[in-house]
Order: sequence, then structure tokens, then C-alpha cells
Amino acid sequence: MSPPILAKGESPALLALDWGTSSLRAYLLAGPNVELATRHADWGIMNLPPGGFDGALIELCGDWLTQYPVLPILAAGMVGSAQGWSEAPYVATPANAAEIAAHLVQVDGPLRRRVHIAPGVMSSSALPNVMRGEETQILGALELDAGIAATSEQEHLIVLPGTHSKWVRVQAGRIEDFVTFMTGEMYAALRQHTILGRLMLKAEEVIDGDSAGFEYGLDVARQHHGDAGLLSTLFSVRTLGLTERLTSAQLPAYLSGLLIGHELAGAQSQFSSSTAQDGLPLTLIGSRALCERYQRALRHFGFPPSHVLANATQAGLWRLAVAAGLISTRIRSGAGSSR
Amino acid sequence: MSPPILAKGESPALLALDWGTSSLRAYLLAGPNVELATRHADWGIMNLPPGGFDGALIELCGDWLTQYPVLPILAAGMVGSAQGWSEAPYVATPANAAEIAAHLVQVDGPLRRRVHIAPGVMSSSALPNVMRGEETQILGALELDAGIAATSEQEHLIVLPGTHSKWVRVQAGRIEDFVTFMTGEMYAALRQHTILGRLMLKAEEVIDGDSAGFEYGLDVARQHHGDAGLLSTLFSVRTLGLTERLTSAQLPAYLSGLLIGHELAGAQSQFSSSTAQDGLPLTLIGSRALCERYQRALRHFGFPPSHVLANATQAGLWRLAVAAGLISTRIRSGAGSSR
Repeated sequence: MSPPILAKGESPALLALDWGTSSLRAYLLAGPNVELATRHADWGIMNLPPGGFDGALIELCGDWLTQYPVLPILAAGMVGSAQGWSEAPYVATPANAAEIAAHLVQVDGPLRRRVHIAPGVMSSSALPNVMRGEETQILGALELDAGIAATSEQEHLIVLPGTHSKWVRVQAGRIEDFVTFMTGEMYAALRQHTILGRLMLKAEEVIDGDSAGFEYGLDVARQHHGDAGLLSTLFSVRTLGLTERLTSAQLPAYLSGLLIGHELAGAQSQFSSSTAQDGLPLTLIGSRALCERYQRALRHFGFPPSHVLANATQAGLWRLAVAAGLISTRIRSGAGSSR
Repeated sequence: MSPPILAKGESPALLALDWGTSSLRAYLLAGPNVELATRHADWGIMNLPPGGFDGALIELCGDWLTQYPVLPILAAGMVGSAQGWSEAPYVATPANAAEIAAHLVQVDGPLRRRVHIAPGVMSSSALPNVMRGEETQILGALELDAGIAATSEQEHLIVLPGTHSKWVRVQAGRIEDFVTFMTGEMYAALRQHTILGRLMLKAEEVIDGDSAGFEYGLDVARQHHGDAGLLSTLFSVRTLGLTERLTSAQLPAYLSGLLIGHELAGAQSQFSSSTAQDGLPLTLIGSRALCERYQRALRHFGFPPSHVLANATQAGLWRLAVAAGLISTRIRSGAGSSR
């Protein structure tokens, strides 16, 4: 593996690892938004190479470890779960960067290097909710997004759409509480393993192809969320196909709209007790295409304007490393001035 | 295959076929509730033997056809779908026995025998809903159950729990409207194909083993049906396991309670506009174990007392055959007096 090509004078201050269930991403950072190099492998915690966690780190970043012998290493994500490298127990909400940083767990890594692992966060308001990895993205959003500065007392919603979508209420730099919706995983399970996939075109890209189907799904969900509910509206994916009111090409977008619509209706009711009259301001974190689909849905539902934030993971790992004292002030201020 | 042993003087008046996606059941009937013989094979419409529909009928009932050369044959279920023997288009609600019988479809079967196939029923109130086979069970219930006699103007709910649960409102012998809940199929897909199955014991029978887990699921669904909704409550199957508030043996019953609870909450809101102050009287049709689980859930939700009806399919096929004039009055009254 070839060494990273760094411009003269740029010196990394943190090896930041985003280590999830299905992939490992390594960032060489010189600041919260200063990425000197990045590498990626499919070595999620459920798919490690020979040598396990040590082996994955050596394979992906061994040359960096040799080149920068005192570089601190911080990892976030499922690597800190019971099935991960070392379990980092959940921190309870409300939680800010300092509290999360105080619960990093240490493990001995390769080349006698210590690896710091971030804990997840648990909310226990009504039903327990857990996150691992998202807490770090949220700390990154608080760092990057002037609209949700840690000093602001204004409540704000951060939405992380995906397999298990998270809706997170933040205030004054704290994760106050959050809710999970199994939207992405449900979409895959319903399409691949139930009768609802039968009438659909197979191509995965079809999902983006039909805005009429998508918006019809949103409307049906909004109308029936609180009465018949999802178990019942789902059957319309079949009957609207049987009655030819939707084509096989429209049905995947309809199912997507239906599920995202139920998520939005649920979140709307969940965070409706807020003091903000027109709903809380919203920031989205995730893949560009998915966030844009959610923005369409949010507009359709009448949520306040939202914007999409990139690079939240790197910024969050940086923020945590600073809060934990892993990055010396000298290097930190030096990197900060190079932005 | 040995011939059926019939008591002297008993003469069949109808060969009734319950022909679904995964199985075929044949009844030799002498009255709505007078079953002279029954046979069963795994030859659902998706799993036919060589010779297809003709072959299945000859294999299972060829000797009956020979022995009773003028016996009328009537089939209900997915055999009348687009993937079945011959498509019998849906009849629109409201629909009674006469209207359904008027839309039987005929197909030439083996040994030059004509086979009559029952249509399904479609409701198009809010979203389209369809049934195939259940309409026949409902006609059977109207025949067997004195509490929902066709002459009564009292509204009544018939619930058919299962893969796609149906809640059907009947009045004066008519199917007025109905709603589908994908409860059973969702349970299987979630348990087998999502993260929710991971923390569970594998044994299928565990589902009945824990009433505390089941009732906890019912309560969570009732409390959150109209706000966070199913996509969100589902994640508690994982988090209540992670936090050890439920054991791996309790989780299947909890998931079952959660799904059935969302079904009941949805049905309650769907049929709440009824004139009956304490809710409509309820009849359940289905397997004994599943109906008993639903009865526990219905009691927990405060529905009116319900009872379970057996043999609805046979009675419904008989009722349809009479309405269609397939059974002569002489044989019919003779059979009726032998009850």
C-alpha cells in the first residue's frame, strides 16, 4: 500500500476510524474538516480479514502507523458493540461531547498502539433507543453547523436516514433524546421477502424513478398513519398493483414513499410537543441521494426547510479526540489555522 | 386411494374444494355442516403435480368423481386468481351470497366434469382491499352463526387472523367492507430476515410461551400506534433484548404481541365510526391456536366478547352452491334433515 502524499507542512493529528458492521473507513485528519487522506475496506466487524481487528488495521493503515509513531487512534461505530473489538457501554442521554469522551474505552492494538473506542448513546424516555456511530456524526454536526452551535439554547433536529433512521433532538451541544425508525431495513425485507415484491420490477434503481408513486405513498402514509397504520397501508402496495392503478415500475417508489411517510408522520408526532411553532429546524446527515429523497418528503409533509451536512463523521471523531485530550493543543491550533 | 366409507343412506350433494396457494382440501358434503369425507394434499396453485389442476383433482378425488358422476364441483380460493386455474374477477362490496354466486366462473375439468370457481371480493372504500377464499368462509359464518343471521340488520365484525389478516364488517348477509393487515407475513419476514430475529431463541413454539412478553407487546402497540408508529416500536424488540429487559425466549412473543397490537389498534380506529356503543360483536375464523391468541389480545384491548367458529369454509362452499343452483332442492332438504 503506497504512503499518502501529503503536502509539505501538513501533519496529521488523528487517525480516525469509522468502523461499522459492514465496512471500515480510515481518515488521516489535521483538523475537524481537514482530511489529509482516507482509505476504505469492506472489513466491517462481521467481515474481518485474517488477524481480526489488529489485522484489519495493519492491512489498511500499517504504513501510517509506522510513519506517524505517536498519532492517536480513535474509532467509532459498531466496533464498540458487544460483537466489536471491545465493548464501550452506552452513555445515557442527555449527553454532550465531554460526557461521551469521558467514556472512551481503550484496547491494545497492533504495533503496541493504543486504540480508543467511542461509546454509543442510549435514550430511555419511553422505550429504550440506542445508537452507535451516529452520536459521533452528531457531534460532528454540532462542530460544523453554525446553526446548531453548542452554545445555542435553540432546539434542533438532526435526521440520519438509513437502515435504522435516527431522529435526534439536540440542544446546547447535548443529545437530548432520539427515536429510531427501521425504515431502510423494512424496505429491503418487504421487497425481498414478502408478497409485496412480486409485482415489482426488479431493478433497484427504479426506486428513484417515479415521483408520482413516491408522493402517493407519502400521502397514503400521512392520511392513515394514526388510524389503520402501516400493517394495513402496506397491503395497498399489492392491491394498487393488482388493480393497475400503479405500474410495476412505480411500485418500488410507492413502497419507499409509504415507509418514509410513516416515518415522518411518526417523527412529527414524536417531536410535536416542542416549543417551536413551525417545527424544529432540521439537518440531514447521510448519503446525498437518500438525503435528497428525504428532503422531498419533508417538504411534502410541511416540515421546515432542511439542509444536508457532509463530513460529519470525520468532524465528530476530531471533536471527540479533542474532548478526550488525545490531540495536543499545539497541533490542534496549528491545524486549525491551516483551514 | 380407498373409497370413502359412507353410512347407508348418506349421499353427497357437493364436492367442495378449498384450493389455496399452498394446499388443496376436498370435502364431500351432504349439508352445510355435514361432511361425509375429506382429503388433503400440498397441491396449492403454486405447487401442482404433473397434469396441473386436472391432475391434482384426479389424483385426490378421481374415485369420487367416478362414483358420483353428477356431483357438482365448486372451488374457492386462489384457484380463481390470475395465477389460478381460471381467473374469476373480484366482485365489489357490498356483496351477498347471491351476488357472489352470480359470478362463479366455469372451467372444464377432468372426466368431462365442469368445475365452478368462486370469485374474490374487492372493497374500494379508501384503499383497495382484496380477498380470495375468505369471502367463502364469511358466507359460511353467516350460515352457521345464529348471531349474524342474514336477516339481522345488526352490524358484525368477522376477523380472519393469519398471513394477511382480514377484518370484515357484515350486515344483513352482506360483506359491507373490510381491511387487510399483513401481520402474519410481517412476523415471518421480520423474524427471519431482519436484525430483530438475532437476539431471539430459534424455536418456533417459543411464541406461545410467554404471556408477559405478549402482553407487553400489546401495551406498547396500543400506546404508540398513533404517534411513533410501528416502524419505531419495532426497534424496541432489539433494545429490550439489548438491555435485558426481555429474554431471548420472551422476544418472539413480544414481537407477536406488538404486531397483533398494532393490528387491533388499527382495526379499532377503522371500525370506530360504528353505531354500536361498545364496539361491534366479533366472530373469529381460523386455526384454534391463532384464534385463541387473538382472543387474549382482543380482551386485553377491551373489545366485546368474541367467539371462534369452525368449519366455515365447508359451510360457505355449500351456501354458494345453493345460491348458484348447483344443489337441487330435493337433495338439499334431504341432507338438511339428517343434521
